[in-house]
Amino acid sequence: MPVPRVHIDVMLKDEILDPQGQAIEAALPQLGYDGIGDVRVGKHIELSVPDDVDVATTVDGLADRLLANPVIERFSWRIADDERR
Amino acid sequence: MPVPRVHIDVMLKDEILDPQGQAIEAALPQLGYDGIGDVRVGKHIELSVPDDVDVATTVDGLADRLLANPVIERFSWRIADDERR
Repeated sequence: MPVPRVHIDVMLKDEILDPQGQAIEAALPQLGYDGIGDVRVGKHIELSVPDDVDVATTVDGLADRLLANPVIERFSWRIADDERR
Repeated sequence: MPVPRVHIDVMLKDEILDPQGQAIEAALPQLGYDGIGDVRVGKHIELSVPDDVDVATTVDGLADRLLANPVIERFSWRIADDERR
């Protein structure tokens, strides 16, 4: 049985200024990439969850308590189809 | 026509040690989350690409040249179904 591999994205809330995203957005035209907008940068966390737990409850709980700062960040997650050892 | 919203994940290559991931993995049992393993942390970048460009060529190019360090990082990307302004 492959172990569920969870991909979690933690992003700044939309109303929070994102200087990293702005820096990337400003650099892109100099590299020849025009018209690319609304660049936002966050964290991507991958982890393997035992297959005998409730994945949704577990991931929502640990993301809320450890991975994301609920004041300024939002998170989303999905189960990837790639298997890990 | 909704503007394609691209989600890019930049992760350390598997053979590269990930201290951030290890720190999270070590903290989880103290919060009551046992059995969660192989925690890896990377960057998640979201951006909007004009719909008149070849998304694959554009994203592969800018990820390779600006977002990821090809020596130690790998990247993957997907087009999300959420629309942006």
